[in-house]
Amino acid sequence: MSVIEKINCSNDVKELSRDELELLCSELRKFEIENIAKTGGHLASNLGAVEFTVALHRVYDSSVDRIVFDVGHQCYAHKIITGRRDAFHTLRQYGGISGFPKPHEAVDDAFIAGHASNSVSVALGMARARTLNKEDYNVVAIIGDGALTGGLAFEGLSNAAASGEPMVIVLNDNNMSINENVGGTSRLLQMMRLRPGYISFKKWYRTVFKKSSLLYRFTHRFKEWLKSWMLPDNIFSEMGLEYLGPIDGHNLDSLEKAIALAKDMQEPVLVHVITRKGKGCSYAETHPDKYHGVGSFDAETGVLSASEISFSDKLGEYLCQFAEEDRRIVAITAAMAGGTGIECFAVKYPDRFFDTGIAEGHAAAMAAGMAKQCLIPVFAVYSTFLQRSYDMLIHDVSLQKLHVVFCVDRAGLVGSDGETHQGVFDVSFLSSVPGMTILAPASFQELHDMLGYALHDIDGPVAVRYPRGGEGAYKDSLVAAESVLREGSDLTMVCYGTMVNEVLEAANKLEARGISAQVLKLGMLRPNRFSLCLESLRKTGRLLVAEEVCQSGCIGSQIITTAVTEGIELKAVKLLNLGSGIVSHGKVSELLQENGLDAAAIADRAQVLCGNGIKLQ
Amino acid sequence: MSVIEKINCSNDVKELSRDELELLCSELRKFEIENIAKTGGHLASNLGAVEFTVALHRVYDSSVDRIVFDVGHQCYAHKIITGRRDAFHTLRQYGGISGFPKPHEAVDDAFIAGHASNSVSVALGMARARTLNKEDYNVVAIIGDGALTGGLAFEGLSNAAASGEPMVIVLNDNNMSINENVGGTSRLLQMMRLRPGYISFKKWYRTVFKKSSLLYRFTHRFKEWLKSWMLPDNIFSEMGLEYLGPIDGHNLDSLEKAIALAKDMQEPVLVHVITRKGKGCSYAETHPDKYHGVGSFDAETGVLSASEISFSDKLGEYLCQFAEEDRRIVAITAAMAGGTGIECFAVKYPDRFFDTGIAEGHAAAMAAGMAKQCLIPVFAVYSTFLQRSYDMLIHDVSLQKLHVVFCVDRAGLVGSDGETHQGVFDVSFLSSVPGMTILAPASFQELHDMLGYALHDIDGPVAVRYPRGGEGAYKDSLVAAESVLREGSDLTMVCYGTMVNEVLEAANKLEARGISAQVLKLGMLRPNRFSLCLESLRKTGRLLVAEEVCQSGCIGSQIITTAVTEGIELKAVKLLNLGSGIVSHGKVSELLQENGLDAAAIADRAQVLCGNGIKLQ
Repeated sequence: MSVIEKINCSNDVKELSRDELELLCSELRKFEIENIAKTGGHLASNLGAVEFTVALHRVYDSSVDRIVFDVGHQCYAHKIITGRRDAFHTLRQYGGISGFPKPHEAVDDAFIAGHASNSVSVALGMARARTLNKEDYNVVAIIGDGALTGGLAFEGLSNAAASGEPMVIVLNDNNMSINENVGGTSRLLQMMRLRPGYISFKKWYRTVFKKSSLLYRFTHRFKEWLKSWMLPDNIFSEMGLEYLGPIDGHNLDSLEKAIALAKDMQEPVLVHVITRKGKGCSYAETHPDKYHGVGSFDAETGVLSASEISFSDKLGEYLCQFAEEDRRIVAITAAMAGGTGIECFAVKYPDRFFDTGIAEGHAAAMAAGMAKQCLIPVFAVYSTFLQRSYDMLIHDVSLQKLHVVFCVDRAGLVGSDGETHQGVFDVSFLSSVPGMTILAPASFQELHDMLGYALHDIDGPVAVRYPRGGEGAYKDSLVAAESVLREGSDLTMVCYGTMVNEVLEAANKLEARGISAQVLKLGMLRPNRFSLCLESLRKTGRLLVAEEVCQSGCIGSQIITTAVTEGIELKAVKLLNLGSGIVSHGKVSELLQENGLDAAAIADRAQVLCGNGIKLQ
Repeated sequence: MSVIEKINCSNDVKELSRDELELLCSELRKFEIENIAKTGGHLASNLGAVEFTVALHRVYDSSVDRIVFDVGHQCYAHKIITGRRDAFHTLRQYGGISGFPKPHEAVDDAFIAGHASNSVSVALGMARARTLNKEDYNVVAIIGDGALTGGLAFEGLSNAAASGEPMVIVLNDNNMSINENVGGTSRLLQMMRLRPGYISFKKWYRTVFKKSSLLYRFTHRFKEWLKSWMLPDNIFSEMGLEYLGPIDGHNLDSLEKAIALAKDMQEPVLVHVITRKGKGCSYAETHPDKYHGVGSFDAETGVLSASEISFSDKLGEYLCQFAEEDRRIVAITAAMAGGTGIECFAVKYPDRFFDTGIAEGHAAAMAAGMAKQCLIPVFAVYSTFLQRSYDMLIHDVSLQKLHVVFCVDRAGLVGSDGETHQGVFDVSFLSSVPGMTILAPASFQELHDMLGYALHDIDGPVAVRYPRGGEGAYKDSLVAAESVLREGSDLTMVCYGTMVNEVLEAANKLEARGISAQVLKLGMLRPNRFSLCLESLRKTGRLLVAEEVCQSGCIGSQIITTAVTEGIELKAVKLLNLGSGIVSHGKVSELLQENGLDAAAIADRAQVLCGNGIKLQ
């Protein structure tokens, strides 16, 4: 029996001998690689997190203590250790376990994770609750050095330091976020890595001088002086956090010792752990960015399965083309140059490329400053992460009508990353930003043409939103607010983006059933007077709108409002969308089906709408 | 002729002798006090900013160089110096000049300001644009130590440090945000204030060793060593910013010298300036928090004009009452204990009160952690600042259905602070947060009862939104999703919050004109099936909804969608709201009138709606 098979909870890890622990780590790595090779997932970050995860379970009991992950895509070892080994082959699959911590999966997952930089804030809230409720458990936050570039992390650290709350912050420092890390924060950490640790001194000191003793108080000043001599101040200690580190993040002994010491200190302590992304897997160690988030691959060689050409790939290509003709165009990313496809821009125009680190708020505000001084900034960002810029979109960009182009990637369902990453709120929140134009290309060619339109024909803020993955059967380019894709007389079906593929297919099915659907594609979601939609509705009186977004603020509701304001009588309407916007993980096709947004479901809904002409729930 | 009357631009300041400069500063102070005493405005912060503002205009030309304020309510001296002295008596008045920097007012206002912590990001964007466009002007960011607690400032500083872009950041450090400053950041600065400056050494060094010279390069290492000895590392220099300070912020000579040196250095430099809020005005110096933002007052004695009892006052009172009965209730503010009325909570329950500093994102995420561990956190926050928490509302609070209570103050029009502060987006963005309940009290008693309902009868995230200022004629309490306030048969008028007062008055006017309006008040904006509204619409067929929010995502649109989905025929509808949401400054009553949301305009609109029964624009 292998060691890994004996482990089902934190306490099982505590039973192991030193040798067994080493074995466990290598088995965890092997297990992770073999599984991720099949399911896809986050490889490099998880391989780097094995030892400190094991060390955490040696010191803490995750069923009682609260271990708060940040981003959370490095939680695989934690999941395997805490009873989800047998389910691990279902990782990120529809109905299977999530690739991120999820409290509803296991009590060991203390909190949801997905967006970066929140763990210290959340953990501080938990520590304060623990203290106020006079309960007795430990709270740990894990945070990567990449997430540390996010202002939220700084806010959390600043508040945690001042709180005095007993809690431990494990800084997982691999000098990477997804790409190589950037900015002043990175420099800060670099300097710290060079500094000597003083863990063993500290441990000796605490053993000799118990905190309660008179001697402790007498020697405290001396210790503070000694500390300042041995360990020059760094940002963490200056803020008021106790700092332990740097620790070799792949040395189980050092890790366990440091974490145990931090736990005993009963104050806010930061343990600085140096890890290597991809550790123990040659190809992932060599190319940690390539093996950050992957689809299936060959476990032996690391050769990745071929992936389709995506809207992101095309964005990078087109943006380079436009930038060649117009020197005012600059590109901005918040640590997502690879994911958003603009790495090629960074290579071709290094002076005009700006990676802010995980700092979406800053990226938007900086873009506003650039636009005010006559550049054309393009911020390529995932829909779900643009939520972080909401206030800056209104305050810094929109109130001055500044021409910033937002390339909103992963708009709509994103698939296997699940509910924390679905890009289903952008249509709603972008619509509320004064003067925001929203374009929704449905094909690569439309992405090209609408990007050009956004860059050169629009004044003020503009968002171009497009989905994860590639284009479908629709490959035309119709750059218009509205376009009629198909004439019909029985009902009006409205859609935008790649949803046109499902809706056109539904229209075919309907035709076979004797129902004539007029299909309209919206190229511009806002502003839009919906003139063609209204014209069609005057004829059909029946409206079906299919959208991969949450119900609140959806375009369907805007069309209805406009139609009613215009005095058009609607016999029957059906808004198909994602309701609250909470959608779990799985393939996009599975999620569309689950939510009644696949061609078959759309056709059925449309048929009911026409069949009786009465209202529907 | 006084000195102040000679000054109409930066260059006029450069002409003055040392004595005249001192005179100018005292005249500026006197002018500010006399004017603010009449118009109201921000007093203490502006009195503290006089000298460094004058020094900035000595060194820079604000008509060409870009001086970016943060928050911006300390820009009065800047406005007076740059040609707005004669208009200053119209400060914050309808049609008058704004209390914040506004580029459309003068070229000297480089960028909009209102929300904290954005100036470094904006200035970095401008500096990068300047360099890429090969232009020749200087860029300066001003930032307060309070704004430094915001993560956005940290993101900006981190990126600016790494950029190498020539720009100057003036840190205006008065150890206050609006209330006394909190957190690890405050501690950081406290330590820096104790350190010796080394400006004069630096200046001498740069004069002797020109940067281009061979000697410079030879001595550079020596200098770095000397610097590390004279000036221990601080967070700014560790990030890679040149640090100059601390400087006495009321000594014109030192200020001018330091700023001129910083400008010459042609790299990112932070000048740390120590100021005193309220400087030169005894009552404002003694009580800087009380004289932060004020209405009119007696310039001699500082006695403030009496102000009405506000929803904020009542919130504090009620929250204390509920907290007495339920130990799980804790209160959170982001540096706005006074403004949100919960200072009394801080006094009564210091252990259960948490001030995060200007860090709305952290406050929401921390609240989520608290709620997960069985506290009932109440985050009292202005509507406009809650925009900063949008992502955390979705990701940290809502996805786990956590019971966090958001007391959304200043919801709707806020009056004289103008477009950066209007609370007109919250209904839209809160509606898109999965599972969010939104309550809208219309009277103090409703605030009490709905707060109780939010605390004890709702599971999941809940927002209680209420306006700036006090209640109107409506003083009842109807805690229901919908309530009929007045029966009628000709049209259905729907409203919520204190807008009920205007709508009820409009209904009276309509009655006198022979029109019978049914008035419905929404107590719960979401979720809401609008059953009573639909029932009324079945009868009247005419809908008017009056809301102090932006059009996108407004409740009117939601009612129409529901009605149409239910198959109700609407003969005529009119949604009255604030359109794009951009509304300038002035009295709330003036702004309501401007936007057709006063009783008279509502009545007129309703009459047209009924008079012909046809559609309206």
